[in-house]
Amino acid sequence: METNTQLTVAQCWTALREGVVGRVAVLQGQGPDIFPVNYAVDHGTVVFRTGTGTLFTSSDGTFVAFEVDGYDTERGEAWSVVARGFAHEVYELDDALEAMRLPLYPWHDGPKPRIMRIHPDSVTGRRFAVRGGHRTGRPITDVRT
Amino acid sequence: METNTQLTVAQCWTALREGVVGRVAVLQGQGPDIFPVNYAVDHGTVVFRTGTGTLFTSSDGTFVAFEVDGYDTERGEAWSVVARGFAHEVYELDDALEAMRLPLYPWHDGPKPRIMRIHPDSVTGRRFAVRGGHRTGRPITDVRT
Repeated sequence: METNTQLTVAQCWTALREGVVGRVAVLQGQGPDIFPVNYAVDHGTVVFRTGTGTLFTSSDGTFVAFEVDGYDTERGEAWSVVARGFAHEVYELDDALEAMRLPLYPWHDGPKPRIMRIHPDSVTGRRFAVRGGHRTGRPITDVRT
Repeated sequence: METNTQLTVAQCWTALREGVVGRVAVLQGQGPDIFPVNYAVDHGTVVFRTGTGTLFTSSDGTFVAFEVDGYDTERGEAWSVVARGFAHEVYELDDALEAMRLPLYPWHDGPKPRIMRIHPDSVTGRRFAVRGGHRTGRPITDVRT
């Protein structure tokens, strides 16, 4: 049976709050680019840390998309949540984040970490059966060496 | 210790071939958008199936980014591979794919599936230590109900 269920906004935020790793899509050069980030949800915004490289320069002050997803091997269902909105560098939050011990460990570490905050204009999500399931039966995050 | 190692192109393709689920970033409306897809690698291209919705209309003939990533809980290392290039609908490949039994099951199922092919201009990847690891110790693809 195929299912493709739209998640409620509340369900989307629950998934976002429980997540650890997401992906930020930005415009860069010829078109979109994607960067995995460790993130945290903070009062209806998505906060992530990055270095001073491409992700920083291409996300500060621009409209971005942020995505988290997962797969339920037992139910054969996948889900995905996308938050879209403008991202801005946050200056005053750094100390607060340290105090809160939000685990904003950057996937791409740099010498001068920046804290970015996305204010979503829209948050949408879906849950859907994946016909046929996995190619190999291994989890999505299977380790490669 | 922090590590941030660039993968070779060969390592990137190995990771792409072993993957099952990736994410396509396209331009749509105000800016980037992200869609998870089930995909397969076919002769140096990335092939995925979609319906006739937003992902199809915003990827056909345009420059897109495609990303796969994963996390090695034992080594505390994450990796990410991004392929960027133009995507085009493929007409004649459908029967061939059926014959090859490529597992192109769409995450977003639609009544008229389309086969899309990305010809990457660039394929880049990194492996890096994630400082502090997971917030909860659970795998990235942990199931939410």
